[in-house]
Amino acid sequence: MNTAAQSKQTKVATKSGSDPWILARRAARMNPSIIREILKLTDRPGMISFAGGLPSPDTFPVDEFIKASNAVLEKDGRTALQYSVSEGYLPLREKIAQWLPWDVDPAQILITTGSQQGLDLVAKVLIDSGSRVLVETPTYLGAIQAFTPMEPNFMSVRSNDSGLDLDDVASKIGSGADRARFFYVLPNFQNPTGRTMDESQRTALADLAIDRGLPLVEDNPYGDLWYDSPPPLPLAARMPLQSIYLGSFSKVLAPGLRLGYMVTSETLMPKLLQAKQAADLHTPTFNQRLVAEVLQGGFLEQHVPKIRQLYKHQCQTMLDALEQEMSGLDVEWSKPAGGMFLWFRLPEGMNSMDLLPKAVQRGVAFVPGNAFFASEPDVRSLRLSFVTVRADQIKKGVAMLAETIKAAM
Amino acid sequence: MNTAAQSKQTKVATKSGSDPWILARRAARMNPSIIREILKLTDRPGMISFAGGLPSPDTFPVDEFIKASNAVLEKDGRTALQYSVSEGYLPLREKIAQWLPWDVDPAQILITTGSQQGLDLVAKVLIDSGSRVLVETPTYLGAIQAFTPMEPNFMSVRSNDSGLDLDDVASKIGSGADRARFFYVLPNFQNPTGRTMDESQRTALADLAIDRGLPLVEDNPYGDLWYDSPPPLPLAARMPLQSIYLGSFSKVLAPGLRLGYMVTSETLMPKLLQAKQAADLHTPTFNQRLVAEVLQGGFLEQHVPKIRQLYKHQCQTMLDALEQEMSGLDVEWSKPAGGMFLWFRLPEGMNSMDLLPKAVQRGVAFVPGNAFFASEPDVRSLRLSFVTVRADQIKKGVAMLAETIKAAM
Repeated sequence: MNTAAQSKQTKVATKSGSDPWILARRAARMNPSIIREILKLTDRPGMISFAGGLPSPDTFPVDEFIKASNAVLEKDGRTALQYSVSEGYLPLREKIAQWLPWDVDPAQILITTGSQQGLDLVAKVLIDSGSRVLVETPTYLGAIQAFTPMEPNFMSVRSNDSGLDLDDVASKIGSGADRARFFYVLPNFQNPTGRTMDESQRTALADLAIDRGLPLVEDNPYGDLWYDSPPPLPLAARMPLQSIYLGSFSKVLAPGLRLGYMVTSETLMPKLLQAKQAADLHTPTFNQRLVAEVLQGGFLEQHVPKIRQLYKHQCQTMLDALEQEMSGLDVEWSKPAGGMFLWFRLPEGMNSMDLLPKAVQRGVAFVPGNAFFASEPDVRSLRLSFVTVRADQIKKGVAMLAETIKAAM
Repeated sequence: MNTAAQSKQTKVATKSGSDPWILARRAARMNPSIIREILKLTDRPGMISFAGGLPSPDTFPVDEFIKASNAVLEKDGRTALQYSVSEGYLPLREKIAQWLPWDVDPAQILITTGSQQGLDLVAKVLIDSGSRVLVETPTYLGAIQAFTPMEPNFMSVRSNDSGLDLDDVASKIGSGADRARFFYVLPNFQNPTGRTMDESQRTALADLAIDRGLPLVEDNPYGDLWYDSPPPLPLAARMPLQSIYLGSFSKVLAPGLRLGYMVTSETLMPKLLQAKQAADLHTPTFNQRLVAEVLQGGFLEQHVPKIRQLYKHQCQTMLDALEQEMSGLDVEWSKPAGGMFLWFRLPEGMNSMDLLPKAVQRGVAFVPGNAFFASEPDVRSLRLSFVTVRADQIKKGVAMLAETIKAAM
């Protein structure tokens, strides 16, 4: 529209009266992400940041994407650049169904713009103001952010030494009109704790959920990133009619394409699909074609093991460094069997929010645990990511963290 | 996760009791798009479809995308495939600011996953259940779908011979707690009618809106597709503090990338940004990089005139065919000055929904007008798209439509 005839001009509204905007009630609940604000702080040269949630860019198959994008655009560019159906590109949905470790019909799969969008669609379709929604303690921050605008009543389920406290789940389901809309769970290498639900917990949770009519929303972005052996079968495989499963290509291919998917039952699909249409019509056609092309010939089967190996090595490096540097300190940390994160607990009386600026001053960053609690945060907790920092820097960063803790004691 | 150790197995929830899912109240309002269902009907060989809302794929600059994707991936692949900031890629936001015909700071621009996402974010941030929202009569179907889940009270503003009925706007603004949250307007080559708001209407509407504190949401996907002369300056340029402007690359580059943007004031941006983060974290990094690369060296300035010329020719072909084939019939149609659509009105007593199956049987399709009304549809109206059908087929299709009308009289 930029033509010579139309030179730029601005006519500012001159009436400086009251604010014309009336915000929706839910907007009051939308607040800046703490992680986001912290990442800004730590984005300076020389900082050793364990705060990121980003996968290692070393794992992105750039050459395959170059080949795939040329193939797609040369072969079928006009279709790949056109609008397409809201469900997603069928050959991609078929490949996802093949990849998943239980029987899934491609008709059950909806392609989403990252699995974050899956959370947004879940919130729109299932949460009314005041609806009971169960979450783990702690849980994924992005899920809290996606659910919050629909004004749920969050119920944080307690953990015990063996993991999820099932009695607490049972006590929080509610009944009648106040029955929980769903329980949001991250059973594999959870963000933020790195913990995994074992087979017996999954069996028990699925039995309880089926018995009490508790739907599950199972988020599984990290499930493929196991180190020594694959995690038990997803919960969705055990109760397909009563679950929504969220998957993602962000950790096994690349997050910058924003490509995720949801698997659900026939009964829920139409509403989720309509919410999807209203949200962005469909996930970018080109991105779906690109990934379908990259996946040709079983690419993930040879690619994902390399990521597992890298992350296992990075994790072990951090665990070794913690063992060495934290000795004698009243601290504890998780030993993940996969994924990108490790959960760390400061000595009694210490607060990770207060510690952060001191750590940053020494040159190391983390995410305070507070952000991951829907209620009653454990102020001693913090999250460490080990996947984007080089091994020698991991050692250095952990030493700095230990120094920071000692200085604060 | 697909390993030999994990053979596929499914354990179906055996308890066939009551439905475990309780849907959100808003889900009851989500219904399949009529257009979508119709498009399925018309997707068969030989059908001449004026029903589509798709731009012509002949206009997609495929070669430029091939060059750009190689350049981006070879030069900076790991960054282009990584997560990125929710605001969007700054060089792209700078290019958009340059392209817009009024003074816009890149800080006012938020990149969205298609401008459809802009509508979703607007709904989340501005609409409470029962909020007054003004729309044109008729208006864009996708906006109704995006706003509806947040349960607005739609007020359809009447049109008169000179376009928008400003007295009716004034009477529907409301006051106090019931003051309209915004008026959603498509001033350029509107979807579905093809009509354009002239300079005097824009001045009058902006004056009224500023005077009465009525925010505007201005949707402008077609503004660049003018035939003979550019439309008047956008409303947002006249009242930047009191408007949200939605733009899109879908019609000037390609829709399959899902790349749109919103322009708004400093006061609203933080909430829209938080809603954006919760919705999909950010628009695909790669797509943003790709388009920023294609836009290098003023690409749109040489590309968009070709689209204008093609669409002008296609439009004229349809207008000529209508003139010829509809003579003697009690019908009327709009004469767009740009865009992709033309609005057509059947003889008195006829209903476009009833006519559609008969037209499809003869081999021509359109979209019944009903879909575009928030309330009280004009059942005689229908929308014709002229951009994806070849000129000789346009003539044939219009002749078939005329035959269908005559046979139904």
